[in-house]
Amino acid sequence: MEAFSKIVIIGLGLIGSSIAHAARRGKLAKEIAGFDISADVRARAAKIGFCDTVPDDIAAAVKGARLVILCTPVGAYKSVATAIAPHLAKGAILSDVGSVKGAVVRDVGPLVPPGVHFIPAHPIAGTEFSGPEAGFASLFDGRWTILTPLPGADAGAVARLRGFWECLGSQVDEMESGHHDLVLAITSHLPHLIAYNIVGTAHDLEAVTQGEVIKYSASGFRDFTRIAASDPTMWRDVFLNNRDAVLEVLGRFNEDLARLQQAVRDGDGDVLFDTFSRTRAIRKAIIEIGQESPAPNFGRDQKKP
Amino acid sequence: MEAFSKIVIIGLGLIGSSIAHAARRGKLAKEIAGFDISADVRARAAKIGFCDTVPDDIAAAVKGARLVILCTPVGAYKSVATAIAPHLAKGAILSDVGSVKGAVVRDVGPLVPPGVHFIPAHPIAGTEFSGPEAGFASLFDGRWTILTPLPGADAGAVARLRGFWECLGSQVDEMESGHHDLVLAITSHLPHLIAYNIVGTAHDLEAVTQGEVIKYSASGFRDFTRIAASDPTMWRDVFLNNRDAVLEVLGRFNEDLARLQQAVRDGDGDVLFDTFSRTRAIRKAIIEIGQESPAPNFGRDQKKP
Repeated sequence: MEAFSKIVIIGLGLIGSSIAHAARRGKLAKEIAGFDISADVRARAAKIGFCDTVPDDIAAAVKGARLVILCTPVGAYKSVATAIAPHLAKGAILSDVGSVKGAVVRDVGPLVPPGVHFIPAHPIAGTEFSGPEAGFASLFDGRWTILTPLPGADAGAVARLRGFWECLGSQVDEMESGHHDLVLAITSHLPHLIAYNIVGTAHDLEAVTQGEVIKYSASGFRDFTRIAASDPTMWRDVFLNNRDAVLEVLGRFNEDLARLQQAVRDGDGDVLFDTFSRTRAIRKAIIEIGQESPAPNFGRDQKKP
Repeated sequence: MEAFSKIVIIGLGLIGSSIAHAARRGKLAKEIAGFDISADVRARAAKIGFCDTVPDDIAAAVKGARLVILCTPVGAYKSVATAIAPHLAKGAILSDVGSVKGAVVRDVGPLVPPGVHFIPAHPIAGTEFSGPEAGFASLFDGRWTILTPLPGADAGAVARLRGFWECLGSQVDEMESGHHDLVLAITSHLPHLIAYNIVGTAHDLEAVTQGEVIKYSASGFRDFTRIAASDPTMWRDVFLNNRDAVLEVLGRFNEDLARLQQAVRDGDGDVLFDTFSRTRAIRKAIIEIGQESPAPNFGRDQKKP
């Protein structure tokens, strides 16, 4: 891939800083500029040094950029797009990393100046940590990035963005934004909502102390606490911006859970056994395609003899 | 700890085989006998060799044992206890590893002959793998084991069982069986029910293919698939035998989820943000007490630069 003369990352958290690290690793840009609305985050990012420049002014940051990537929470996109639109160069690519795509098309699309290629994207990668210190170059290695180009998008620009993500280490898919939002509602948004909810329920029980929950968490609960430790602002914005798809899969989840609840109440061992049996194949497939470690407990801390 | 002259493990799956490995590592028994109702499992266990003997007859297995540990699914306890009761030596300790304790006291308690010390136990440890090949000596290292001795239990026998578990590598707590069942309902049983349920929901969606769920699972879903890959028979028996506590915490979970669902529907960002903010502290505490790895993604497969 030919390097971009300048790329700009707006929002210097886990994903933004990881893009900068990985772009530098791959020599994908002659210049990497970074911007964050927080002066504190800008100062920390400048100190770490994953960007060549971290201007205080968003207009200065995007000036002359050939690729601009929005890495803020989705709720900030409209104001960011409004601020940068007058300064985007003709032929530049404007992209993002948001976990929802329909709302991004709706909010940002109308603000994109003619001649700028707007191509929404979503790297399916992350950790439970946030902030500029959390980023690292290998975050996207072997993960998937989904591009959701609009109908009529410039094929050359889409290919260029695809090549960029491939050089960041990712595999790349393309799909329609609405379908993306439904796929992510079940694979990501619902799991996060459920995890946040169960950690909250445990937090509020009177009969079991928080100390007991923490002490005995290795029995299952701790697996939920990782994703329930993710950035609250980002996740608030996900749920505000993918309402319909989330409510749809949540409705299915509730119906299924009501059936399991009934089986527990009735002591119906066959329903329980059948439900618990058919889920192993999915995990096996996830391990087989390399999206999970087969080590017990994810290889957390235990060793085979 | 003075070694037992003979211990017997009944049920040679993940936990039973791990106890044998760890007991041998710690030289905690002069003889370790193992029994499993499955001839195939007995043959595999004998081949691996973590027991000194694997008799075909359960009465022969328990003969002369000073410590007998039930490691079968909880639903099999009553028939196992009936089979071994006439062969238990006076002064022997009868214990178990079941994830529920009230039902064990109810089912096994009346079958224990006078002079045998019945002390239920539950090691909070496991992996998503099952069978005699899954066991390893360090499974209990640093984990918690809960003893639920009945009122009036022999203090010397309880101390001896506590010492055994400590020598297996575990930390040991004691609590009343009913409280144990409530603590585990929230820390273990509800998380497993929820995980099984969400994997099932994803499995059944028509609009999203199973291939897509698997491919994009790193976005949260895969964290649920590990515990939803646990042994179905064991988990069926857990839910059949801890109904009241599970239904109680599930009721709380449903109430909390209904509130979050309403917040998503209403676009109430404050409720979402507040819920998502207060869960991080619990994870931090779990890491601090050594029950979890602080590495991103549990140190699954990604490295810091």
